[in-house]
Amino acid sequence: MRLCKTIEDIRSYVNAVRSEGKTVGLVPTMGYLHRGHLSLMHEAKGRCDVVVVSIFVNPTQFGPNEDYQAYPRDLKKDAGLVADAGVDVIFTPDVAEMYPTGFSSYVEVTGVSEFLCGASRPGHFRGVATVVSKLFHIVQPDMAFFGQKDFQQLLVIKRMVADLNMTVQIAEVPIVREDDGLAMSSRNVYLTPEGRKAALVLSRSLKLARELVAQGVLDIPRLREAVVREINGESLANIDYVEIRSIPDLLPLDKLQGQALLALAVRFGKSRLIDNTVLEA
Amino acid sequence: MRLCKTIEDIRSYVNAVRSEGKTVGLVPTMGYLHRGHLSLMHEAKGRCDVVVVSIFVNPTQFGPNEDYQAYPRDLKKDAGLVADAGVDVIFTPDVAEMYPTGFSSYVEVTGVSEFLCGASRPGHFRGVATVVSKLFHIVQPDMAFFGQKDFQQLLVIKRMVADLNMTVQIAEVPIVREDDGLAMSSRNVYLTPEGRKAALVLSRSLKLARELVAQGVLDIPRLREAVVREINGESLANIDYVEIRSIPDLLPLDKLQGQALLALAVRFGKSRLIDNTVLEA
Repeated sequence: MRLCKTIEDIRSYVNAVRSEGKTVGLVPTMGYLHRGHLSLMHEAKGRCDVVVVSIFVNPTQFGPNEDYQAYPRDLKKDAGLVADAGVDVIFTPDVAEMYPTGFSSYVEVTGVSEFLCGASRPGHFRGVATVVSKLFHIVQPDMAFFGQKDFQQLLVIKRMVADLNMTVQIAEVPIVREDDGLAMSSRNVYLTPEGRKAALVLSRSLKLARELVAQGVLDIPRLREAVVREINGESLANIDYVEIRSIPDLLPLDKLQGQALLALAVRFGKSRLIDNTVLEA
Repeated sequence: MRLCKTIEDIRSYVNAVRSEGKTVGLVPTMGYLHRGHLSLMHEAKGRCDVVVVSIFVNPTQFGPNEDYQAYPRDLKKDAGLVADAGVDVIFTPDVAEMYPTGFSSYVEVTGVSEFLCGASRPGHFRGVATVVSKLFHIVQPDMAFFGQKDFQQLLVIKRMVADLNMTVQIAEVPIVREDDGLAMSSRNVYLTPEGRKAALVLSRSLKLARELVAQGVLDIPRLREAVVREINGESLANIDYVEIRSIPDLLPLDKLQGQALLALAVRFGKSRLIDNTVLEA
């Protein structure tokens, strides 16, 4: 496995494999890899000849009071996991390589990026869209792989790709969960043992909503209220948002018809976790 | 010469020529072509195997009270000029092809796009950067050609290309002027006969500034004041801005050292014209 630290290096690698007629898949990550990321890599391996995993904790998607400094990093362990997964190359630039002095261009996706996490974290999706746009231009992948765990991010990126006529194909991969239901996240490491236990309320409340829908409850405020009540039953949980919104525009709904996204952001102490499920009538 | 109206059509054309190993040049225009555009096409012909001219009056770069509806259009005449110039293909999409329902992604270049025309025309450069980004993704040119007439636009695009790691090479082409000094512009058609005469004050004032610099006047406020006085000597002229700024960041300067941009925007009746020159100490 090769490790590229500069844009020039990864470009020359990708140009070489492309000139052999091979297809290229990109898995953009912030590192501290878990089984969710491995699932993205496996999917990419199955669908592309060569897979690039980018590892870059992107400062522009963190707010001033967020966990950019504290975000967990372990490149050595990540490199081992990537090599074991049979992935060809890691692209892991430093911040000055991606954002040199004078950097001042951004990609902004209005609408879908303004709700849910976009409302809680102003500027977050601008940072995401910008860095993903950069990675697409640097690697020029045929396909890029994103997890449904960050469902809104997926919608923002699909919107960006369609609107700006990017040619990359976006593949989405289901959420990977621990055996007890907790969605895999690099931020789970922030949880105290009590918080870890309490955080099970997330997947439990999603399951409750799916069960209610199966029983015929289609009234959105009623579904939402049931989820809020379930989460508030857990004393360590502090709701940031609970929303049931249309796909792909994330607009408010009165009644479940077809598909809708149930998305949660909840704090447990200092850790803010997100989770989601697609409800279907 | 071929005329492509859809993204699919121009993409299949470009893919075919690229598969023959040919290089592709793009000349983005809003049509109503004049000798300035022809100079871009000639430059592109000289440096690329195949040249694409896009003709699209881009609504997102016009403000609500600007001349989007009135902007002159003559595709039939343009097609003749493009064919005569030996250019291979025109890409002329309609608005719905470029901005389908739900469109909501934009490229924003902060800093350099906020001064001069960016201050007079809020949102203008966001529209420019967005449509140029789309054209780059659609055509995937090796090189794109822009005129120095729109000097700030050139700086915005170069900033965007560098920041977002686009691989296209940006070529800049000098201003083309009428024999009497008026810079070529599709908007010159708005001038009354008196305004047409009065507009000569633009190139005259630029020449004055260059002469003062040659005489050793390097004090920026003094240079600017001389230009303002010259323009105000023309009773039909109504100054929007007169600025002498650093290249490429367009920051204010006290003293001319090396190069600086002298940029003007002046109204003559309903026509707002721009012109510029690079001053060099």
